[in-house]
Amino acid sequence: MKEIVEIIPNISEAKREDVLEKIIEPLKSVQGAYLLDIKPDKSHNRTVITMIGEGEAVIEAGMILYRKAVELIDMRIHKGEHPRVGAVDVFPFVPIKNVSMEYCVELSKKLAEKVWDEFKIPVYFYEESATREERRNLPDIRKGEFEGFFEKIKDPKWYPDVGEPVVHPTAGVTVIGARMPLIAYNINLGTSSIDIANKIAKAIRHISGGFRYVRAIGVMLEERNIAQVSINMTNYKKTPLFRVMEMVKAEAERYGVPVIGSEIVGLVPEEALFDVADFYLRLENFSYDQILERKIEKTLEEKGNK
Amino acid sequence: MKEIVEIIPNISEAKREDVLEKIIEPLKSVQGAYLLDIKPDKSHNRTVITMIGEGEAVIEAGMILYRKAVELIDMRIHKGEHPRVGAVDVFPFVPIKNVSMEYCVELSKKLAEKVWDEFKIPVYFYEESATREERRNLPDIRKGEFEGFFEKIKDPKWYPDVGEPVVHPTAGVTVIGARMPLIAYNINLGTSSIDIANKIAKAIRHISGGFRYVRAIGVMLEERNIAQVSINMTNYKKTPLFRVMEMVKAEAERYGVPVIGSEIVGLVPEEALFDVADFYLRLENFSYDQILERKIEKTLEEKGNK
Repeated sequence: MKEIVEIIPNISEAKREDVLEKIIEPLKSVQGAYLLDIKPDKSHNRTVITMIGEGEAVIEAGMILYRKAVELIDMRIHKGEHPRVGAVDVFPFVPIKNVSMEYCVELSKKLAEKVWDEFKIPVYFYEESATREERRNLPDIRKGEFEGFFEKIKDPKWYPDVGEPVVHPTAGVTVIGARMPLIAYNINLGTSSIDIANKIAKAIRHISGGFRYVRAIGVMLEERNIAQVSINMTNYKKTPLFRVMEMVKAEAERYGVPVIGSEIVGLVPEEALFDVADFYLRLENFSYDQILERKIEKTLEEKGNK
Repeated sequence: MKEIVEIIPNISEAKREDVLEKIIEPLKSVQGAYLLDIKPDKSHNRTVITMIGEGEAVIEAGMILYRKAVELIDMRIHKGEHPRVGAVDVFPFVPIKNVSMEYCVELSKKLAEKVWDEFKIPVYFYEESATREERRNLPDIRKGEFEGFFEKIKDPKWYPDVGEPVVHPTAGVTVIGARMPLIAYNINLGTSSIDIANKIAKAIRHISGGFRYVRAIGVMLEERNIAQVSINMTNYKKTPLFRVMEMVKAEAERYGVPVIGSEIVGLVPEEALFDVADFYLRLENFSYDQILERKIEKTLEEKGNK
């Protein structure tokens, strides 16, 4: 595939396995789009679906997903720990290979029109597709959740970006947008003090003065009796992993606490790791073109043989 | 391509560009093998050619290369700073994708038989193809160089692995073998003392008690007036980049000298960099399968769509 767009729709269902299967099954037969991963979380009652494909193909997969979700999910009876506003709660488009962010924004707007036209689900644009600054962040849009949206949507400040200010009775509203690949990254501390983890989280996250593309909270890993800084990296190009790690180390040291490990949850783009190696090794004049596998791929593409 | 073997033949020619072109040109038409890189070094009068392909295709490319080199290179008049024993001086096979080291050893033995049969060039096996321990390292085989080999080859200890103990009058002898990808890696020190660079090189290299898969020397970068530890990493899986970097840092610090940078010369396998990131980030339970691009490639391969 020459061009790759990733979509990662989150749907508000995980407990009823038969329903989940009915939603997923038709996604498998979309020409040119491929299921990469399906992650149901029963306590959140929410499933994260990852697909890749070319632009038109992922739009088609998206429409199939909305159709099935509207048919099979009733938000009036949905329960789960994770905040959510609709049956298809959030639908991000991510540029992966040979596509621009602008193209992904276009795709998100195209899907939004189709979703309103066919299902009458009001759409909010977030991240790179946001129409105004206060809608850039998902948590701001999500405030009030499904139940609160029947009131919230009447406030002109919260009129939807596409569609009329009327919540779909069973499917709620939906959030669509383009964004960078997100890295779920957690750093484990050699302490059982959640206070220290929270202080470090506060130091590095954007909202309280930290890095532009970092969201973070302190959490307790009860089974290991250690505290963790749980991080979402929303743009690893502009706020790289190593810079966050260096800052966490420095802040932890201030409390006499060591960093004992870290974990990447789910997938990570290879360039995020190349950039870490580049930093640690203090490389001079390093280019991704020096990576053997890239060189091979490029050569084979040039020869039209793969 | 499902299986990828890399070959990196080094030939004893770089100054005569017309000759070089005559040697390289026919390599371009080998079915299933592709030229990745051509690096002539005029002061060494030596060219490093990198190709990839499936097993049979790189053997075919190899035979074409030997044929042309025998025809166009006369070692009796060859001059260059780099030690060399023949027109095709050394011919390594490297496993890159879905092929084992054992398979590369097989390929090296197959090429050796063909080279002796057709050109009567005696062959020495080195690295993973070596038939005895004292032939594992290229510098040991190369000692005496082309000029000295007419005597050396008569010593039963230095009988060739394939062919009779008679040096080819113009093409000399040749060294063939399978090995891991090699990383040329240099670490720059914040000092103009070549002594310190040499001491650090001695500390990390295998021959003087250091890491099993490291060769290193101190060199002076005259134009920057700094000393450098110039390193060949011969197995980045068993002796990883970060371990060498940590050791160089510690040794340099002992002399009050900082590491000011490093460089990767030429190509580097992506896993060598992933392993650096894994170390620096102190990742727990990280798997290469978490790398987005790998996941995508695997999914597309399973679907037979690429």
